[in-house]
Amino acid sequence: MAGLQTPEPSLDVQGDEDAGDGLQSSHRMLSFSDALLSIIATVMILPVTHTKIYPEEQFDTSMRKLLATKIAVYLMTFLLVTVAWTAHIRLFQVIGKIDDILALLNLACMMTITFLPYTFSLMVTFPDVPLGIFLFCACVITIGLAQRRWIVGVCISPPHLLKPNRFACSGPQNPFRPAHSWAFFLRGPALCFAAALFSLFFFPVSYLLMALVIFLPYISKAASWCKDRILGPGEPPAQSLEFFTFDLHEPLSKERVEAFSDGVYAIVATLLILDICEDNVPEPKDVEEQFHGSLVAALGVFGPQFLAYFGSFATVGLLWFAHHSLFLHVRRATRAMGLLNTLALAFVGGLPLAYQRTSALAQQPHEELESIRVSCVIIFFASIFQFATWTAALLHEREALHPSARFGGQEHALMFAKLALYPCASLLAFASTCFLRRFSTAIFHLMQVTVPFAFLLLRLLLRLAFAVLWALRGLIRPVGPLPSDQDAADTQAQLLPAPC
Amino acid sequence: MAGLQTPEPSLDVQGDEDAGDGLQSSHRMLSFSDALLSIIATVMILPVTHTKIYPEEQFDTSMRKLLATKIAVYLMTFLLVTVAWTAHIRLFQVIGKIDDILALLNLACMMTITFLPYTFSLMVTFPDVPLGIFLFCACVITIGLAQRRWIVGVCISPPHLLKPNRFACSGPQNPFRPAHSWAFFLRGPALCFAAALFSLFFFPVSYLLMALVIFLPYISKAASWCKDRILGPGEPPAQSLEFFTFDLHEPLSKERVEAFSDGVYAIVATLLILDICEDNVPEPKDVEEQFHGSLVAALGVFGPQFLAYFGSFATVGLLWFAHHSLFLHVRRATRAMGLLNTLALAFVGGLPLAYQRTSALAQQPHEELESIRVSCVIIFFASIFQFATWTAALLHEREALHPSARFGGQEHALMFAKLALYPCASLLAFASTCFLRRFSTAIFHLMQVTVPFAFLLLRLLLRLAFAVLWALRGLIRPVGPLPSDQDAADTQAQLLPAPC
Repeated sequence: MAGLQTPEPSLDVQGDEDAGDGLQSSHRMLSFSDALLSIIATVMILPVTHTKIYPEEQFDTSMRKLLATKIAVYLMTFLLVTVAWTAHIRLFQVIGKIDDILALLNLACMMTITFLPYTFSLMVTFPDVPLGIFLFCACVITIGLAQRRWIVGVCISPPHLLKPNRFACSGPQNPFRPAHSWAFFLRGPALCFAAALFSLFFFPVSYLLMALVIFLPYISKAASWCKDRILGPGEPPAQSLEFFTFDLHEPLSKERVEAFSDGVYAIVATLLILDICEDNVPEPKDVEEQFHGSLVAALGVFGPQFLAYFGSFATVGLLWFAHHSLFLHVRRATRAMGLLNTLALAFVGGLPLAYQRTSALAQQPHEELESIRVSCVIIFFASIFQFATWTAALLHEREALHPSARFGGQEHALMFAKLALYPCASLLAFASTCFLRRFSTAIFHLMQVTVPFAFLLLRLLLRLAFAVLWALRGLIRPVGPLPSDQDAADTQAQLLPAPC
Repeated sequence: MAGLQTPEPSLDVQGDEDAGDGLQSSHRMLSFSDALLSIIATVMILPVTHTKIYPEEQFDTSMRKLLATKIAVYLMTFLLVTVAWTAHIRLFQVIGKIDDILALLNLACMMTITFLPYTFSLMVTFPDVPLGIFLFCACVITIGLAQRRWIVGVCISPPHLLKPNRFACSGPQNPFRPAHSWAFFLRGPALCFAAALFSLFFFPVSYLLMALVIFLPYISKAASWCKDRILGPGEPPAQSLEFFTFDLHEPLSKERVEAFSDGVYAIVATLLILDICEDNVPEPKDVEEQFHGSLVAALGVFGPQFLAYFGSFATVGLLWFAHHSLFLHVRRATRAMGLLNTLALAFVGGLPLAYQRTSALAQQPHEELESIRVSCVIIFFASIFQFATWTAALLHEREALHPSARFGGQEHALMFAKLALYPCASLLAFASTCFLRRFSTAIFHLMQVTVPFAFLLLRLLLRLAFAVLWALRGLIRPVGPLPSDQDAADTQAQLLPAPC
């Protein structure tokens, strides 16, 4: 019976061993942080979806600008929270165990992060008032100091909190020199401090500095890559620099990428039901007066909303399914995969917006075409970035993928088909709305209905396709040997495009 | 380097082994389902928190009734989703691995479950129209059939999906007789079908039947317990009944209880920031007109909301922390613990309501006292049910708890103090509002500020308390031997109340 209900018996045993010292495995705290961060990352889509759409004459001018602003806030918040999340991962790739103080500090840190979206929307609503920038910088500095507190706390007192296969940060061989890691964690707060100062006399510089905070890791990665290309690979860094192994190019923790993605998919899938439960229950008075007591007729008015909800849930659910299938084959997530996955998630977060606009504009037929196209574009980008994540994994397939999904492996073709389904379907739907404008809604709903069935029958369809291909090959080379398994893999490899 | 980023290397390896057969570890699908279910469980608190509070004369009569109705909807939804979640756990305690079809079926099942809260609010808003009951029953029957499809699918074709240490459901020794398990999964749908029929001519019976669906597991447990007490423990069930080991009294999966609780805590902690980000960004026009361009003054108006947010986040965060500490010591969750934990979570879900009412009523001073008392009561119940969960674990401490947290163990006193902190603080705050009515707000805020520090210093305070106690004991028996570790444990055991 032991271990029957516990998929992670190893963690369980650890908890048992260390509970006496007040030390705890950090696993559950990290899942909780991931859940909080994924909710915060997707919160800012709500003001966008709840933007009221007025009659057409007003929509074209100010509304478009307002929508664009809100979407920009959403995207920037998403990226910003992702940066905070990446820093959190880095930190806990070093810290293996936690104690109560660390858990409480982490909660305080999370509370500060949850406040970031608000400061961000203040900044956008009042671009020339420095208060938003000030609050934002105060939050980032607080988070930076809390993380510094962690490192100092961890390094000075209990070295057993660190992961065993990391270097200890103090000891005779590895003297305590945390300058390098401090630089990493204090870079953001320092830039923000400068931004706060600049906001007093010339705020455009502050915005530039804050953009730098977000993109610095990627810029530094790109710069080092260019340097390597031009000057040839440099010497590996000296041992003295590595004592506190913060490798920025180190792969992200796969479990945390999965947990964060799960959180985003879950909250996005249910965002519309939040609204439906709140707004779409008719008032008994209205039903009596307007629909002569017929509840079915009253609910019929909300039909487009229900359709939008089921459509959005199905799409998000299937994108999650593709993501899930992809990460089953992933051994470890490289930095490029992390970035592409984040971009895919940012577009997934935009899906409820597209669907809500589809339902809101159902009454205005000439806007319908546009909103269906927007939906197609968002689905396309969300799925194409998933596909790109897979391509990035294939580029480093030896370290990033399990053998079965590698180029020429058993599951390679199925994976390819799964990830290519939504990009193809959305592209097809988009193209057909150009030719068959009148049927655009019908085409979109057809896509929504067929794609789930396509996923269900994918394995069957793929086998059928291979059977047909083999038959064709047999017709061309009728006297050749029977196709062995190796041959089948070869055919597969020839049929698929090169991954880079 | 291998396994550095993967806290679950065993799962990883499994995924590697089975990826070729299209089989996957169900771990991630279960986390995703838990995340979805926890969001759905807490959704219905939103209509409650967003109930507009009109001037006092209207509040007393119809508003109270409306609020009570909405709270009832929230609690029933929460319990109902928990029942669906428990059934989901039971199912996946048998099914160890999944394939693509199962994953997609699970998504469809989740989509149906997300629709339950809506049908529920329809039922409450229109209690004498059978449509709500119909929709509800249709959802439950769909879920039941999907789960039946799972079992049949699993039993007929791939027996390797089942957990290895369960009996296979077909084979010469264990012939395929799923009648027992079907009865378990079809009991709910069958009751709902009857409820749908009754709704056509006499709907109170339908409500009774639906209540039966929710409470049936607990009723049957209580009945069997009573039977055991009166008739003495019966014979163990015959081998033929056990072939498809659905033990209803089997402990719940600890990981899934944690994941579900994490989801609820995370969404509840951030519910208020969702509102703040959307509603509390002032309009540039208003700032110009009403506050002469001063953004700080405009934000000052929202002060109570910010305070409410931070208060609610801190409380939920610390309750999560207590829950986290508790489950670190839990080896396996019994059914009673599951029920008590669910009740604790249901009250946690009510926290944003209490805090939002506190902020909304800050302008109406005579309502303030009442809303602060409501907050105290909700915090008290949320934390006392956590405490009760621990007590339930202590009742079966050999199977439920790790040795260090057992009665007399090293961590027992600390655990006791952690879990007793919030009940005591809220009780104290409630009591002092009775004597010091005028300072009730100040007392409440004082509680909010001191409790986090109390958690930080708990270990220190506890040592201090023990030192004082030992000193006192030394004064009483000055010539006794020095207190050994065993003595310390004894003191501890004497100081704490008996667990039952």
